[in-house]
Amino acid sequence: MFPAATYADRRQSLRQHLDGGLVLLMGNAESPMNYADNVYPFRQDSSFLYFVGLDHPDLAAVLDLDSGEDTVFGDELTIDHIVWMGDQPTLVDRAARIGISRTRPRADLAGSIAATVASGRPVHVLPPYRHDNRAEIAAMLGAGFEPSLALIKAVVALRSIKSDEEIAELELAVDLSVDMHIAAMKMARPGVTEAQIAAEVERVAVAADRRPSFPVIATVNGEILHNHYHGNTLKSGDLFLLDAGGESPLHYAGDLSSTVPVDPRFTDRQRTIYDLSLQAHEMALATVAPGTPNRDVHFAAARVIVEGMKGLGVMKGDTDEALAAGAHAMFFPCGVGHMLGLDVHDMEDLGEVWVGYDGEPKSTQFGLKSLRLARRLQPGFVLTIEPGIYFIPQLMDLWRSQKHNAEFFDFDELDRWRDFGGIRNEEDVLVTADGMRVLGKPKPKTVADLEAVRG
Amino acid sequence: MFPAATYADRRQSLRQHLDGGLVLLMGNAESPMNYADNVYPFRQDSSFLYFVGLDHPDLAAVLDLDSGEDTVFGDELTIDHIVWMGDQPTLVDRAARIGISRTRPRADLAGSIAATVASGRPVHVLPPYRHDNRAEIAAMLGAGFEPSLALIKAVVALRSIKSDEEIAELELAVDLSVDMHIAAMKMARPGVTEAQIAAEVERVAVAADRRPSFPVIATVNGEILHNHYHGNTLKSGDLFLLDAGGESPLHYAGDLSSTVPVDPRFTDRQRTIYDLSLQAHEMALATVAPGTPNRDVHFAAARVIVEGMKGLGVMKGDTDEALAAGAHAMFFPCGVGHMLGLDVHDMEDLGEVWVGYDGEPKSTQFGLKSLRLARRLQPGFVLTIEPGIYFIPQLMDLWRSQKHNAEFFDFDELDRWRDFGGIRNEEDVLVTADGMRVLGKPKPKTVADLEAVRG
Repeated sequence: MFPAATYADRRQSLRQHLDGGLVLLMGNAESPMNYADNVYPFRQDSSFLYFVGLDHPDLAAVLDLDSGEDTVFGDELTIDHIVWMGDQPTLVDRAARIGISRTRPRADLAGSIAATVASGRPVHVLPPYRHDNRAEIAAMLGAGFEPSLALIKAVVALRSIKSDEEIAELELAVDLSVDMHIAAMKMARPGVTEAQIAAEVERVAVAADRRPSFPVIATVNGEILHNHYHGNTLKSGDLFLLDAGGESPLHYAGDLSSTVPVDPRFTDRQRTIYDLSLQAHEMALATVAPGTPNRDVHFAAARVIVEGMKGLGVMKGDTDEALAAGAHAMFFPCGVGHMLGLDVHDMEDLGEVWVGYDGEPKSTQFGLKSLRLARRLQPGFVLTIEPGIYFIPQLMDLWRSQKHNAEFFDFDELDRWRDFGGIRNEEDVLVTADGMRVLGKPKPKTVADLEAVRG
Repeated sequence: MFPAATYADRRQSLRQHLDGGLVLLMGNAESPMNYADNVYPFRQDSSFLYFVGLDHPDLAAVLDLDSGEDTVFGDELTIDHIVWMGDQPTLVDRAARIGISRTRPRADLAGSIAATVASGRPVHVLPPYRHDNRAEIAAMLGAGFEPSLALIKAVVALRSIKSDEEIAELELAVDLSVDMHIAAMKMARPGVTEAQIAAEVERVAVAADRRPSFPVIATVNGEILHNHYHGNTLKSGDLFLLDAGGESPLHYAGDLSSTVPVDPRFTDRQRTIYDLSLQAHEMALATVAPGTPNRDVHFAAARVIVEGMKGLGVMKGDTDEALAAGAHAMFFPCGVGHMLGLDVHDMEDLGEVWVGYDGEPKSTQFGLKSLRLARRLQPGFVLTIEPGIYFIPQLMDLWRSQKHNAEFFDFDELDRWRDFGGIRNEEDVLVTADGMRVLGKPKPKTVADLEAVRG
C-alpha cells in the first residue's frame, strides 16, 4: 500500500470539502457466486481503497468531520480463523499502516451510526452498487436514504486528479496490460479459439498475482461492442479484437484495445480501415490538452472518420452537418474514452454527470449519449483514448429502413462493408501541464509494428 | 443444454414432492465487482440450471403446482441491445428449448407473485444467497419470509441422485480438472511462484471456454486450509498443494487436490507422510458403498491416520478412544469429502443438515463438525474423497497449552513435524449399485506416478 501519510492526506483533503457530520465508507464483502461460501475473487471498493487502503472484506470506515477522528470497523481473527487461515496481521496493525489508530468491532457500526443519526448530524454515504451494502446502509439510515451529493462531488474532485504515486501505479497497470496484449497478438492465427486467447490474456495478469481490471473481450466480431462470447475459432480473413487490461498491485486499472488480422498480414481492405481508425486515434491523442473539453477530442476523432468514409464513397455531404447530426455514430456509436483510475470506468458508480460532465446534462443523441467524459481536461486526469470503426449490420439496416441520416450515406456502398467487422485501438493517457503523455510501455499499433510482432 | 425432456421431467418429479401452490425459482443477475457495470463472470444459480437450464441473467421461473403451468419471466432484447450485443435467440426460443412455452416480462413477476399470495396459495422459495435475490423475494413475500422446507427437501432428493446425463457432465468436469492438475504438477519447481501456477491452472479451464468451479488453492502451505494467498515462491524442500477444479459445459463441478514435492523427488520424510495420506485416501475409497454412512468413510480414513501416527511415535494410546475423542483432528480437522454436482459443495446453500445429514443433527466436536456429508450413501451420489494430513503449528500449540487430548500425543515428537506443511489427495467418485467408481481420467497419485509426471 501507499505510505500512511498518503491516506491521511487524502482524508484530510476530503474534510476540507465537507462541512460536518460523518463520512461512512463501506468496504466490500466477499461476493457469492453459486452459494454463500463459493466466492468470486475479492475486490475492495475503490473509494474505500482510496481513503482507507485496507484490502480485505467486511470493513467499514467512519470519518468524523467534527472531531477529526477516523475509525475502522472490523473484527480481529479468532483462534478458529487462525487454525484455518494461518497467522495474519491484526486489524489494529493494519489500520496503523494507513494512519488510523481507532478500530472497533464490525457489529458496533450500526449503533455508532444510529447515535449520529439520533443526534441530528448528517451521515454522508456514497451510492452503493453492492446489494449487501445497500441493504446495510438502508437498515442504518432508512430505506429512503440519499447518497450525499457533497460527498460525491468531493470524492470526484479528489480521485479525478492523479498524484505521482497514483500515476506510477497506473504505469504498472498499463505495462501489465501491454504484456497481456502482446501475448494475444502472438497467438492470434487461424484455428486458435477466442477462449484460448482470452485464457492466455487472463493468465498473464494472474501469474503476476494481479487480476484483469474488467472482463476480457477477445473476439473476431469487434463490431459487437458488448461482446463476452468466446465460442468462435479464428479463421483466415478475420480480424481479431482484444479489449483487456490488468490491475496494478494497488488495484489501479489498465485498459487497452488492439486489433490484428488473423492472417500474418492485413488485406488491403483491412489496412484501409485500420489506417483510418489509427488516424482517428492519433488525432484524438493530439487533441488531448489541459483546458480542452474531451467532447472536442471525441469530435476530432469523429471528423477523421467522416472524412475517411467520404473518401471511400460510403458517406457524403457536409462534414460539419454530418457530425452535428450524429451520422458518424453509424461507425463510432460510443465515446472516445473515459476516466481511468481505481475503476476502469473511473468512479462510474458516483454518477457520470459528476465524473464526466461536471454536472452539465448529457446529450441524448445516439452515439454522443455514450460519451462518458466530455468535460474540460485538467492536468492529472488519466483517460482512455479509444475511437473505433465498427460496421454493425443491424445498425445499417435500422438506419436504412428508417432513412435516418440518409443524406449522409450511400447505403449501397456501405453495404459492401457489411461483413467487415470492427477495429479499435485504445491507449491510456495522462493529461500533463502542457499536453499529454501515453502511459506505460509502447503497445504496437502501426500496421508495420503489428505485422512485426506477429512475426 | 440437456434435451427439453430432461428439464420437463425434473420439473414433473419436483411436482410429485409438493402439495400445491407455486414454486418460485430465482435466476441470478450479474454480480457487480467494483461498480454496477463491471461484473464478475456470470454464474447462474444451480437449482435454476437444474430445473430450467437457461444460462443467462435476470430470469425467474414460476412452476404452478396446481395448474401444471410453467412460466419463465424475462425480457426480450430490444434493438438497442442488438446493436451493442449482436443477434441473440429470443427468450421464447430459449424457453422452448427447455420445454416451457410461456414467457412473461420480468417486471410482471412481482404482480404475479402478489396475486398468488393474496389468494392464500403458498409460494415455495429456496434460501437466497445473493443479496439482490433476497431483497426481491423479501419485497414480494415480506421481510420475514421463510424458505420452503418442503421445497428444500424435494430439491435435495432430486439433485442428490445424479442421472447418466449428469454423470457424463461430471466426467467432463473431472477430465478438465485432471488437465488443470497435470499442468500444475509439471510447473512446480524451485523459483516458480504460486501465482504463476494458479494462473496456468485457471488458463486451462478458460481456454476450454469454461471456468474454475471454485477459487484455486495453489500453495506451499498446504496446512493452511483456507488459503487463497498466492504470494510465495516455491523453493527446494517445499511441498506444493493444489486444490482446483473446472466446470463442465453445463456447469457441473470437478474438484481435485494433489500434493507434489517442489524438488523432483520426495524426501524420505515427505514420502512417509505422503504414503500415509494416500493409504488413508485409498481406505476411504474402498469404504465407499451404497448403504454405508459416509461418517464411516470419514472414520476409516481417520483410523489409518491415527495408526500411522502411532507408528511414527507422534500419537499413542487406544485408537478407538483417540478416534472417539477426535484426536485425529489434530492432523485431519476437516471432513473426508462432500457432495459434488452443479455446486462444488453441492447444494450447500440449501442447508448441510438436509444435504449431508438427512435432517439429523451434526456433531459439535472439532473436526467432525466440519464433515459435510455423513449420511448413508446411495447409488447415484457423487462425492469427493479428500482426507488429508496437516501439521498446523497454531493447533499444536493450542492443544498442548490446553492439554487437549494430551493422552493421545507425544507433543515433543509432534513438534519435530512442526514445519512439515500439509498433504491432500482428492478424487471425485460415483456411488454405484455395488460400490463406487472414480470419475474422470486417472490423476497421478502414487509417488511413482507423480515422480514420473514431474520428469
